[in-house]
Amino acid sequence: MSKPLILVTNDDGITAPGIGHLVSVMRNLGEILVVAPNRPQSGMGHAITVGDTLRLKESKIFDGVRAFECSGTPADCVKMARHYVLKGQRQPDVVVSGINHGSNTSISVLYSGTMSAAIEAAIEGTPAIGFSLCDYSNDADFSHALEYVKKITQQVLKEELPKGVALNVNFPPKRNEAIKGIRICRQSNAKWVEEFDERRDPNGRKYFWMTGNFVNFDKGEDNDEWAIANNYISVVPCQFDLTAHHAIPVLNNWSILG
Amino acid sequence: MSKPLILVTNDDGITAPGIGHLVSVMRNLGEILVVAPNRPQSGMGHAITVGDTLRLKESKIFDGVRAFECSGTPADCVKMARHYVLKGQRQPDVVVSGINHGSNTSISVLYSGTMSAAIEAAIEGTPAIGFSLCDYSNDADFSHALEYVKKITQQVLKEELPKGVALNVNFPPKRNEAIKGIRICRQSNAKWVEEFDERRDPNGRKYFWMTGNFVNFDKGEDNDEWAIANNYISVVPCQFDLTAHHAIPVLNNWSILG
Repeated sequence: MSKPLILVTNDDGITAPGIGHLVSVMRNLGEILVVAPNRPQSGMGHAITVGDTLRLKESKIFDGVRAFECSGTPADCVKMARHYVLKGQRQPDVVVSGINHGSNTSISVLYSGTMSAAIEAAIEGTPAIGFSLCDYSNDADFSHALEYVKKITQQVLKEELPKGVALNVNFPPKRNEAIKGIRICRQSNAKWVEEFDERRDPNGRKYFWMTGNFVNFDKGEDNDEWAIANNYISVVPCQFDLTAHHAIPVLNNWSILG
Repeated sequence: MSKPLILVTNDDGITAPGIGHLVSVMRNLGEILVVAPNRPQSGMGHAITVGDTLRLKESKIFDGVRAFECSGTPADCVKMARHYVLKGQRQPDVVVSGINHGSNTSISVLYSGTMSAAIEAAIEGTPAIGFSLCDYSNDADFSHALEYVKKITQQVLKEELPKGVALNVNFPPKRNEAIKGIRICRQSNAKWVEEFDERRDPNGRKYFWMTGNFVNFDKGEDNDEWAIANNYISVVPCQFDLTAHHAIPVLNNWSILG
């Protein structure tokens, strides 16, 4: 049997340490293709490049690995990998994205470029995993996560995933205590409350930095925030059908339906 | 009772005809605040501005209406409206986004800046509606949609929406036949298949335009693509919990959970 084909991408850009760690793990699991953004794309959500052009350039950054840097978003990278680089060829057996520098738990999944790449792959019918480390520093310690990155990817390659599902995997920051294990979770109920730091540019014109505080409303123990706080790895299966099916019967009572 | 406060935004930018139509309808329903992007933001998905600054400038574009143009994404506009413009003040009773120039049915909801603004509002607990016209031309005829924009907004103001739900409303293009009515739908099962139009710049370097074909796999009649094709308005209730709850028991069988 041939080795699995693994597409690697991220949202922090091809030079970020996190994707380097991901490539180092994937080298042992199969044949790799990297198509990743040429600059940081954090917070890009499921953005795609519309009304503008894209660039794609071969990169030698990973020794012995076929790699491209793309001017687009993480979702663009997955599209270009499938429909340009691999056009008419064997398609990936799995898409892995990350390892993100920073948490993508809870509501952050919506803003996450890391997860948009994974969800884009799920739309295409390819098993996909977004990996994030809940540590924002550029010199974050990924060492405790790598063994689990390998195990989870092997599990997905072995058994695949339910159709239309991508995994949102978050690792707790490196602590003195060892990781307790993996928890399958739901997305926790939380949000960001923004503040706008108002400043003046040298010409006296106003500009803003958006900052925010994460507020967790969730009291449960079956969610990703609880898992991370308790030193577990959280795995949330995510889907791209946004339909709130429970709301359909409610709306069918609308008087304006006639 | 005071008039409802209506926040209006979009993703085609504050000068697009579609938001002009939306403001013209909302004038009759309540007090309006407009915070909209200062340039087109199509395809921005749920992007937010991270690692860069934001600008906000008062605009006189809508006669007698308090309006701001923002340098950020549609989701940024909702955040700035709530947490800067209206900070410490009464918050919106409803957020309306659009009217988008182009369809946001099916999987396009993920790429849609129009819907990201509505979903951002739903995260904040505010009823929200994204309106889109399935006609991409800049001089599209919105006339057949406006009566329904009003009716749907009135319905939401009267009865609110289930918690955490935003509506994705799409209008068929103007046809000879009158609109048949409103259908409450699920998101249809379809995707975009991309092609990359490869060109050379004046310096001989490659660049690409992403184009794509929409492919509908859905044979049902309870989905948004069916509704639009049959000259109905589609209303899909959308949620921001991406958890694939049905997949949790499947993943709990993983051998690596130990």
